[in-house]
Amino acid sequence: MAFATTGVGETYAPVRIENEGGTGAFVFLCEHASNYIPPSFAALGLNKADLDSHIAWDPGALGLARHLAALLDGPLVACGLSRLLIDCNRELNAKDLIPTCSEVTLVPGNADLDAAARQHRIDLSHIPFHAVAEAVIAGRLAAGIVPTIISVHSYTPTFKGAARPWEIGLLHDQAPDYAKRVIAALRETTEHVVGDNEPYAPADGVYYSLNRHAHSRGLPHLMIEVRNDLLQTGEQEETWAATLAPVLLKSLSDAPQTRGSDV
Amino acid sequence: MAFATTGVGETYAPVRIENEGGTGAFVFLCEHASNYIPPSFAALGLNKADLDSHIAWDPGALGLARHLAALLDGPLVACGLSRLLIDCNRELNAKDLIPTCSEVTLVPGNADLDAAARQHRIDLSHIPFHAVAEAVIAGRLAAGIVPTIISVHSYTPTFKGAARPWEIGLLHDQAPDYAKRVIAALRETTEHVVGDNEPYAPADGVYYSLNRHAHSRGLPHLMIEVRNDLLQTGEQEETWAATLAPVLLKSLSDAPQTRGSDV
Repeated sequence: MAFATTGVGETYAPVRIENEGGTGAFVFLCEHASNYIPPSFAALGLNKADLDSHIAWDPGALGLARHLAALLDGPLVACGLSRLLIDCNRELNAKDLIPTCSEVTLVPGNADLDAAARQHRIDLSHIPFHAVAEAVIAGRLAAGIVPTIISVHSYTPTFKGAARPWEIGLLHDQAPDYAKRVIAALRETTEHVVGDNEPYAPADGVYYSLNRHAHSRGLPHLMIEVRNDLLQTGEQEETWAATLAPVLLKSLSDAPQTRGSDV
Repeated sequence: MAFATTGVGETYAPVRIENEGGTGAFVFLCEHASNYIPPSFAALGLNKADLDSHIAWDPGALGLARHLAALLDGPLVACGLSRLLIDCNRELNAKDLIPTCSEVTLVPGNADLDAAARQHRIDLSHIPFHAVAEAVIAGRLAAGIVPTIISVHSYTPTFKGAARPWEIGLLHDQAPDYAKRVIAALRETTEHVVGDNEPYAPADGVYYSLNRHAHSRGLPHLMIEVRNDLLQTGEQEETWAATLAPVLLKSLSDAPQTRGSDV
């Protein structure tokens, strides 16, 4: 359970910045890094198995993002609270911003929230996460670095009964140049089954962070999803990072080098 | 140096919540808890002695706040970045929001900031800190707890050459009832030299957090300042907390018990 300690005097951070001083060309975002739920929420009425599962976070995503941030020497902004409290990668008016049902699991603690309770969640996690992401990216730009923004996620091998054959999925939207180069390079240089806007696509409403922080500024960007059965150990996280890092870096070199030319 | 780790892969939190599950009647805020400055800011051009001094943070305040939060079982919201980057206890239009000179020390890294650089600081620290404070207080109210908000600070024994005789100062503004009871009780039960709106007062612009989060909601509130030469060890922090906690608690019992009646 990332970022959490337990017991009296428990401490947590709604958002963390790692490797802020990195000088590389990337900024990494990890919206679903943690399954931590503060004790006052009484686990939203869920059991431990639910809270350990993909409905509460993206298992392995934080580890992968950390290795990528280290290999490519870029900052990582990671959320410290479970997506079940509020999903930092959703529009504030999205139906699944505070999910009452995630996949097939009802979330009792999210039923019938009034406006104050919804605002509480927004203030606790969504606002801080994006304020900090905003600041980190603005800091790069001010320092003359035009960062490529990578959002790192994982997904479950089966969802509502349907198997997902892709081992990794690269998601892109209106400015797909960088993502297309990464997809092509991964298909060329690895044996992995690579999803192109699979198992999700921006039309599923999962592209909030990249729309807000990257596309809006004309920054190259990409959402990486790795199937979580392939991210179960630290070694797997490291292996994926070692596969992806050179591809992410090399795909930059063909990219337009000036800000704004990616759109 | 609170919250900081050093070296490659450095991690920090712009804001942290401690003891969030506490069921007591208080919420503690610590705006000047940390002197941490991310490496990209190159220490704002200051030396280590400056960064260890009161211009960068309130030494001892976090320790005192933690002990109070533990003794009174309340949550603590603590800022993770130096006030030299941006002062989370100042209005956004305050002259000393991002100080170019603190006491008598010029801050080179704060000179001539453009609008983007100022916004970067706001996004990195001011917005997240207050969003989280807002959420923690709203969460109490939603749970039926009407919290008393305590902002914990420390101050330097001499400022611009003037000595400060007070060992502790209690600051209050338009709704002084709770603070007045605490001041009276401290003067009655201890030998301490207690400042009443000394060495600062809200008119000095140091009351932003309490105005925003407590006075605006009619919640009882108080700003505690302890002279930092009396907060140099963990033992001193503990002793102050042991002195203050029963006074803070007892002073509640005479307070109006319904929300809003404090103003």
